Formats: sequence, C-alpha cells, structure tokens
Amino acid sequence: MDIQNLRWWGWGTLDREYPVEGRKALWSSLQKWLGLSDETIERETPPVSLEEISLRPSRLDDPVLASLCALLGERAVRTDKLVRVCHAYGKSYRDLMRIRAGHIPNPPDAVVYPVDQRQICSLLAWAAERDIVLIPFGGGSSVVGSLEPPEDDERPVLTLDLASLGRVLCVDPISRVARIQAGARGPEVESQLNAQGFTLGHFPQSFEFSTLGGWIAARAAGQNSVGYGKIEDMTQAVRVVTPAGVVETKDAPDTAAGPSLLHVLIGSEGTYGVITEATMRIHPLPVVQDYRGVLFRSLEDGLAACRELVQSADMCPSIVRLSDAPETVSYAVLSYEPRGLRGLADALLQRYVKVQGYDWTSGNVLMLLGFDGKAKQVARQWDRALEICGDYQGCSLWQSIGQSWMRDRYVQPYLRDMLLDHGVMIDTLESATTWSNLMHLYESMATALKGSIPISGGGPGYVMTHISHVRECGASICSTFLGRQVNDPDHLAKQAQWQAIKQTTTDAILAAGGTLTHHHGVGRDHAPWLEKEVGSVGVHGLEALKRTFDPAGIMNPGVLLTP
Amino acid sequence: MDIQNLRWWGWGTLDREYPVEGRKALWSSLQKWLGLSDETIERETPPVSLEEISLRPSRLDDPVLASLCALLGERAVRTDKLVRVCHAYGKSYRDLMRIRAGHIPNPPDAVVYPVDQRQICSLLAWAAERDIVLIPFGGGSSVVGSLEPPEDDERPVLTLDLASLGRVLCVDPISRVARIQAGARGPEVESQLNAQGFTLGHFPQSFEFSTLGGWIAARAAGQNSVGYGKIEDMTQAVRVVTPAGVVETKDAPDTAAGPSLLHVLIGSEGTYGVITEATMRIHPLPVVQDYRGVLFRSLEDGLAACRELVQSADMCPSIVRLSDAPETVSYAVLSYEPRGLRGLADALLQRYVKVQGYDWTSGNVLMLLGFDGKAKQVARQWDRALEICGDYQGCSLWQSIGQSWMRDRYVQPYLRDMLLDHGVMIDTLESATTWSNLMHLYESMATALKGSIPISGGGPGYVMTHISHVRECGASICSTFLGRQVNDPDHLAKQAQWQAIKQTTTDAILAAGGTLTHHHGVGRDHAPWLEKEVGSVGVHGLEALKRTFDPAGIMNPGVLLTP
Repeated sequence: MDIQNLRWWGWGTLDREYPVEGRKALWSSLQKWLGLSDETIERETPPVSLEEISLRPSRLDDPVLASLCALLGERAVRTDKLVRVCHAYGKSYRDLMRIRAGHIPNPPDAVVYPVDQRQICSLLAWAAERDIVLIPFGGGSSVVGSLEPPEDDERPVLTLDLASLGRVLCVDPISRVARIQAGARGPEVESQLNAQGFTLGHFPQSFEFSTLGGWIAARAAGQNSVGYGKIEDMTQAVRVVTPAGVVETKDAPDTAAGPSLLHVLIGSEGTYGVITEATMRIHPLPVVQDYRGVLFRSLEDGLAACRELVQSADMCPSIVRLSDAPETVSYAVLSYEPRGLRGLADALLQRYVKVQGYDWTSGNVLMLLGFDGKAKQVARQWDRALEICGDYQGCSLWQSIGQSWMRDRYVQPYLRDMLLDHGVMIDTLESATTWSNLMHLYESMATALKGSIPISGGGPGYVMTHISHVRECGASICSTFLGRQVNDPDHLAKQAQWQAIKQTTTDAILAAGGTLTHHHGVGRDHAPWLEKEVGSVGVHGLEALKRTFDPAGIMNPGVLLTP
Repeated sequence: MDIQNLRWWGWGTLDREYPVEGRKALWSSLQKWLGLSDETIERETPPVSLEEISLRPSRLDDPVLASLCALLGERAVRTDKLVRVCHAYGKSYRDLMRIRAGHIPNPPDAVVYPVDQRQICSLLAWAAERDIVLIPFGGGSSVVGSLEPPEDDERPVLTLDLASLGRVLCVDPISRVARIQAGARGPEVESQLNAQGFTLGHFPQSFEFSTLGGWIAARAAGQNSVGYGKIEDMTQAVRVVTPAGVVETKDAPDTAAGPSLLHVLIGSEGTYGVITEATMRIHPLPVVQDYRGVLFRSLEDGLAACRELVQSADMCPSIVRLSDAPETVSYAVLSYEPRGLRGLADALLQRYVKVQGYDWTSGNVLMLLGFDGKAKQVARQWDRALEICGDYQGCSLWQSIGQSWMRDRYVQPYLRDMLLDHGVMIDTLESATTWSNLMHLYESMATALKGSIPISGGGPGYVMTHISHVRECGASICSTFLGRQVNDPDHLAKQAQWQAIKQTTTDAILAAGGTLTHHHGVGRDHAPWLEKEVGSVGVHGLEALKRTFDPAGIMNPGVLLTP
C-alpha cells in the first residue's frame, strides 16, 4: 500500500472519489431530509492540510530508536509525520472529526513494520522490557476506536503495522484450508486464493483496506456471511504472539479439548497479543454470482421472506439483505440517471414495477438476494427463491440492482468523506437479535436515533436500516443515520453531538435485547458497555486473560477493557 | 430416572440387555480375533454385589448435613450407599474396571439435587464458605474421568446432580431457539421439543443417559452432527453459576463483543461453574429420515466419496459415517440371523452384493449415509448422493442397514458390559484432523493400537475404526479396540494394561497432528496432554479463568487442568 496515496484524513486512496456524476437527486434529497440550508451545502469544510498539523515529537530517544532499528532493520522503523498521522486513528466518524481538524494529541511515537514472527516476538520482548505500548495495526479501518494510543498514558507508543505479512503461505485444496499471514488485505487474500481456484468469501465494506488479522481481531462479518459465515466460522486456527509467549491453537476441524482458546483470541482486538497468521476455511470460486433485487410492499413481508429463505433446508443464499423503506428510497436517490442502453433497461424496469403496483420510493422495501455457485445450482436456487418471495408478494427486479450493488459495494465510505466536507454527520450502528425480537430491536434503534438527532442539534435527521447477516435463528440490524453537524467550528462540539446519539442508541440497543455489536467490535467506543453485555464476572474473566497473556499491560491498553 | 433401576456397575438400566439372541457369530468371531480360549469365554467375571462394597462414611458431620438440608430440603440431600456409588464414577473402561471390582476409595460424601438456580447459587456459596468440593453431574456418562472426587484431597465432596432441572422452559418457533434446563436428558429434551414440532438434533451414543449440560460441558458431538452441528454450534447462550457469581452470555445469533465467553464455558467440564440452562438452536422435526448403507471397494474410495458428499454445495446430509474394513466386518458379525420376511430381504441383499462383486467381510468398507427432511428434498438428495457414490464404485444397500443401525444406535454400550463379564477389554479413542491428514492419522492410530495391545498382554487384539462428523475441511476418527484382559484378578493390573495402550495411542494421535479429543472431552484422563494441545501459555489462560470463576478451587478439581 503506497502511503503517499492514502487519504490520511478520510477513507481509501487519493486516486479515487465517490462517483457523484449523474446522481442528480443526491444533494437535493439530502437537503430535504436533513433540513440543510443552501449555504451549508455550498460551504465546504475541508480537512486541514498535513502541513497545518503539528505532532508531538516522538518520545523515543535516539538510543531507543537505534536499538529498535537494530532489532528490525532501519527501513522497518518509521517516525515521519505522514506515517504517524496515518496510524493515529481508525476510520470512525469521531476519528475523522478529529483528524480532519488536525487534532492528534496522541500520535504513535513510531510505526514499525516487522517482517516475520521472529521479529514480532523480539519486538514484544523488547517493548515489555522498556514499558513501551504496542498497538497492532492491520488495514486501519476500525470504526470503534481500536487503534489510537491511549490518552493520559505516559508510556511511549509503537504502532505495529503488519503490512509486511501479506502472503498466503499455503493452500490445501483437499481440505479446503489455507494458511494466511495476518497482514494480508482483502484483495491480497482473494487474489492469491483466486489464483488457485479458491475464495475465502469474506467481503466486508472495508475489504480493500482491512486485513485478515483485523477481521479476526474484531470478529468481523463480510457482506456474504450468509453463504460463507462470519470470520469466526471461517477461522480454523490462529497463531498469536503474546508478551507471555506464542499461543497456537489446534489446527483441526473440531475439538472437545476444553474451553476454546481459538474463540478467546478471535475478538481480542490486539489486547492479548498480535495475530500473525491463521488457518482459514476456503471454498471453490463460484462459477456464477447471481444477485438481484426483490421489492416487497412492507418490511413485514420482506422480513417474513428473508426468514423463510434462510430457514428453508434447501436454500443456501450467499447474501440476504433487506433495506427498510428509507434505505430503499436512498437506493433510488443514489442510482445513476438512466442513460444509453442501461438507461433504457432501467426505464423499462421502473415502468414494470409501477405497472405491478409497486413504488420503491414510498414504503416498499428492497431485498438484495444473491446466490453463488455452479450455474445449474444457482438457477435452481433462484427458482425456489422466487417462489418463496412470491408467497410474500415480492416483485423480482432482475439483475440490474444486484449489479449496481456489486459495483458500488466498496465505495460508500468515499461518499462519507464528501458529506463530511459539507457539514453532514453520518454514522452507522449495528446489532443482532433473534427473529422474534427483530422488529422490537429495529423500532427501538430507529426511535432512539430519530429522537436523539434533533436533541443533538442535528435537525430532523434521516435514519435508514437494513437487516442482513441472516441465519436460521436471527439476523443483524444495521442503521445508518444522517444529520446536520452542529454549527460550531470546534471538533469537540461535533464529537459531543455524535457521542450523545451514540450513547442514547446504544443504551436502547441493549435495553431491547440486542447485542452491543454484531461485527464492528468493541474498541474504546463500546468498552463502557461491555459489562452490560457480558456481566461483571464475564469482564473479570476477560481481564484475567489479559493479565495472563500481557502481564505488563503493553498491548493496546484501553481497548476492549476499560482501564 | 429411577436409581433403583440403574446398572450402577455398568451402562444403562437393569431392565435392558444387549440383544444377543440370534447373533450367532458374535462369540466365535471374538474368540478368533482376540485369541480367547474357550475357558475365558465360558468363565463369567461379574461385578461385585452392592453388599460387598464398603464405602468410607460420609465426611460431612451431622451439623453440616443439617445445614445442607436446611438449604435444599431434606429430600434433596442423599447419603445412602446406592446413590453415592452411582455418582462415584463415569462410564469409561477404567471406571467400570474399578466399580465392578468394588474399588471406590473416594465416593462423594453426599449427593444433592437442587431444584433451581437460586438453590445452586446458595449451594455454591455454602460450599465455598466450608471448603467443600462440588462436582456437577448430568447423566453420568463421561468416558474421560470427569465425575470422580479427587484423590489425595481431604476436603469433603458433594456431587451436584442436576436431575431436577429437566424442563424445556420455552420454545421460540419463530427464531427456532429453545431455552432448556441443563439437567434434561436426551429423551427429555427431544420429547418436549418434538411435542412442539421441533428437534435439537443431538444424538450421541449416550443419548438416553446424558444431559444437555453435560453435552455443553464436554463439547459433545451427536451422531447427526453433519446435519445439525456439534453442541457448540447449537448453543446460542448459556447461564453458568460460578462461585464468583452468575455468568450469562448474550442471547443473540452472533456478536462481535470481544472474546467469546460462550466458547469458554462450553467445554469447561464443571471446573468453572455449574451450567444451569442454555438457549439452543432447534430445527423442525424432519418428515423423513432415510438412512442407507453404501458399500465401497476400499477405504480410499469411501473416503473420497465422503469428502465429495460434504464438499458439494448442494448436499446436506444428516449423517456420513464410514467404517473401515474391520468395522465393516463387525456389522456382519453383529447382524441378526436372517429370519422371516426380514430374513428373506437380507438374504436377497447379500446375494445382490455378491453378484455385484462386493464382499463386505473382506476389505470392502461400509458407509452409513442419511438425509433428514421433507420427502421430496430427501429423495432429490439421495439421487445426487448415489451419483457421487457411484463415481467411486459405491454399491447402495438400500435401507435395511440404515434401519438396523438406527435400531441399535444406543445399545452398543450394553454389549460392552457383556464383554467385560467375559474378560474382554474394550475401549474407544477418537480424534479429528483435516482431510489431507486423515489417512496419516488413521494409520498412526491403528498402528499404535495394534502394536500396544499385544505388548500390554492383550493378545492379537482387534481394531476397528470409523470416520464420521465429516465437514468441508475434515473429519473425526473413532477407533474401537478390543483385546484380552490381563489374567490378573487385580483391577489395578487391568487398569495399567488399558493405561499403557491409551498412553501410546494418545501420543501417536498428537504426533500425527490429530486433536486430543473430538467429542469425549478432557476430564482427568486427557488432562496430562492438554498442554501439548494448547501450549503452556494457553494452559495458563485456562488456569487464570479458573482462578477468576472459582477462586477457592472447589469446582471439580483435577478435571481439565492438572493440579
């Protein structure tokens, strides 16, 4: 990854933008929904320039840096400004508020790039001896505050970037497993596996800028989790270097050998040690991926169809994702202006939908449904799926919606940067629950968000939600909310606004029986609620593990467990 | 469960026996395989009578017992001989050697039957205050030494029998989950769920005499795990009463809220606390269960077919179980003498097999394959399955084999009692590994067993194995071995003989890359190898959890973690 090309103040790389051309309804709709004045839309509030940022000098003195260089090699130790800035935060709304304002009071004192496990072991011992904090860093896409150095901690901080560990070490085609280094980013994982005819099947929105180790550390879920599982289902074994030594879990399909250390290390968010590699379950590359939209008259109908799809023994969808009415409207708003042949097809589709009595801008809900596999299987699955959807009055929109979703699946975070440039607050909260509690959780989240945005000074706000990561027993809920940023140049005011909404909605999620987080992780942002999720005895258990694996408390302090 | 009807010295209940009538080849084959003399077969070595056993008096004095009765009620506190004997051991070969000889130096001092979580909480506090050891006890079917009071421990011991917690508390048909008390035995779980149209799908060989809590505590697998998952896949949430307080894991389909406490408590074998209830994922009762035998010419062919069956995206078998040649022969030996209509059908089948050029007593291997579901689905799956099996020259034996397997699936342990009556040693070892390592592990286990039985004085011995619990990445291996018991009336000699074989083979399993145990658990028997499985840092992690949940060390000491 070329660090010169990174948008250190936002998402992704400098050579890419959210493709706004042709999306004529975008700004007018936002203006209406959020009560944005013309002036707000026209005024641009760009991030500060790198030159304007002044960083605290590295607290590592020359002899210490020299010793570090001796350990890892000079090129693996970086203290220059851009590198330190790029590693100061993750990519949450709060992170971007701070970095765009140039507010980086606690940058890492250096960033190191070890090349193998031996170096990582030496580095941990070296750091423990000197009471230096280490923050493991994959792709840097955390949205829960997992990557920043702790406040009020006088110890120097090294960020340990795993970018040099990006290889698929071996593929076992017979057992369909692969040994992969933790620093491999999504495209690195897939291109190396694809070359041998396989896929991992993990495609989170952060795919291009997140790593295997990060996915495992955060218990991530990809958009195709219905077909391929969450990351914890894909992970057969991990190797983690902890300050107390290397932990390597048994590389077997299943075991009954006591409590699962594998599942203790999955989700440990860099606080127990550094994940260096893992054995992952892989699958043959699908010959066909057939993803389509299906429109339903109501959320209730759509949910019933989702549930039946995933509870039918003969259905194996790869993705099932149901947008509520506001999110369905946003698809229309974000769709391209029809032009050319594609435009003609779109116009015909719109006409068809209308004739059938549907209207996807007023109360109907859109399901994105997809199957991966061999052509015949996929066709059979679609036949049966359309029967099920038909029972709930679902109207198939064929493949164009699926194709545009596939095309745009990784670009949404670029849109966020653009909105931030124009004073729009935007963030996402997510949870999961059982089917029977789903509407209750959905309504609780929506009510909390819709109530707290105006109170925060965010105007009427806009809340849109999808239900996804479905399984036989339940599903996850993911709500995106937008509002006006408070009209205060101080980024602290903007953070406080966001924090108030986050607090109210997270309380509402837990009160409604949802889990604290389905796939974002805990980080610093969710840590205050962890005890509500797992109980005080549970937290003591996690703390005991922390003391065992990291007796000096140098691994990512303040993340997961509150100090 | 009527304790008067329990075979305290063996398996199951007194009103049942292994149905030996008609199985004419049983003894003659055993005699040939094991080199048993006529005299050995004719001589019966029955267990001692209850009267012959003298137990150490309960170490709980009257005031302590009175206080216990005040806590739980008088009827919930038992100190009579039969109850103490029934709770002294599990059901491993070594357990039966000891109990049949009347060797019970460390019986529990009392057995208690709390009726709810409140009582269990009080009991744990009461015991911690008095430094009294507690052993949680479900159905008592452990085969790894998980249930006996520790040797060389002067503290009094209470066995906590969960028999009074046998209810399915509620069923959520929408989400397909049920809240079930931990003391529910297999038939109690299934009958209550079946009444509402559901099944848990967990059918271990111990089904009739094991409990939900025991399955979870031991990370068990049922014979239909291919279709329904291992117990850890079925368990959505658990509640565990620990001496440090109650731990209740989040009841959600999935979560990213840190390391998984759920997967720490699954497999904790009563050493962290008492599992009191769990939310389990359930499934609609299948309309059809169509289980059949398929004969292959070689283990290699059979394995290739198993792998393809489970790696095909459109196949969802409920059970796939491949017996090697010696186990296939044992099916023939244990089959009933053909009589009546059934006999005619069997005779026709035998003829058909012969005409097709197969012979299931000389090198061919038998796959038991089954599908659960709706009639049409199952028929479609079988069509496709027979195509796959056909590619590897599999010969379908229709349903009679499947039916007799279903009929006899829980009776094998009764046969063990009968063999023990006649000086035969018999036990089972199991592991799991990836497909590419499977033949290596299979051969390592077989070689270790075949080598160590004669050395132990067990004669030529007989080793038979099946591959089951298959999944996309690998499978488990389960080897049963038989031999002559050493001709020494001292049960210690018989234990030493078994221990030598166990030691050699377990070392071989780990050396060949297999896991220490796929579904039996750790207990005391596997505890010495746990560090080889999870590493020393891993063991320290498990110990730290132990100290957190059970600071006084009163929960099932000596199990899982060596003192």
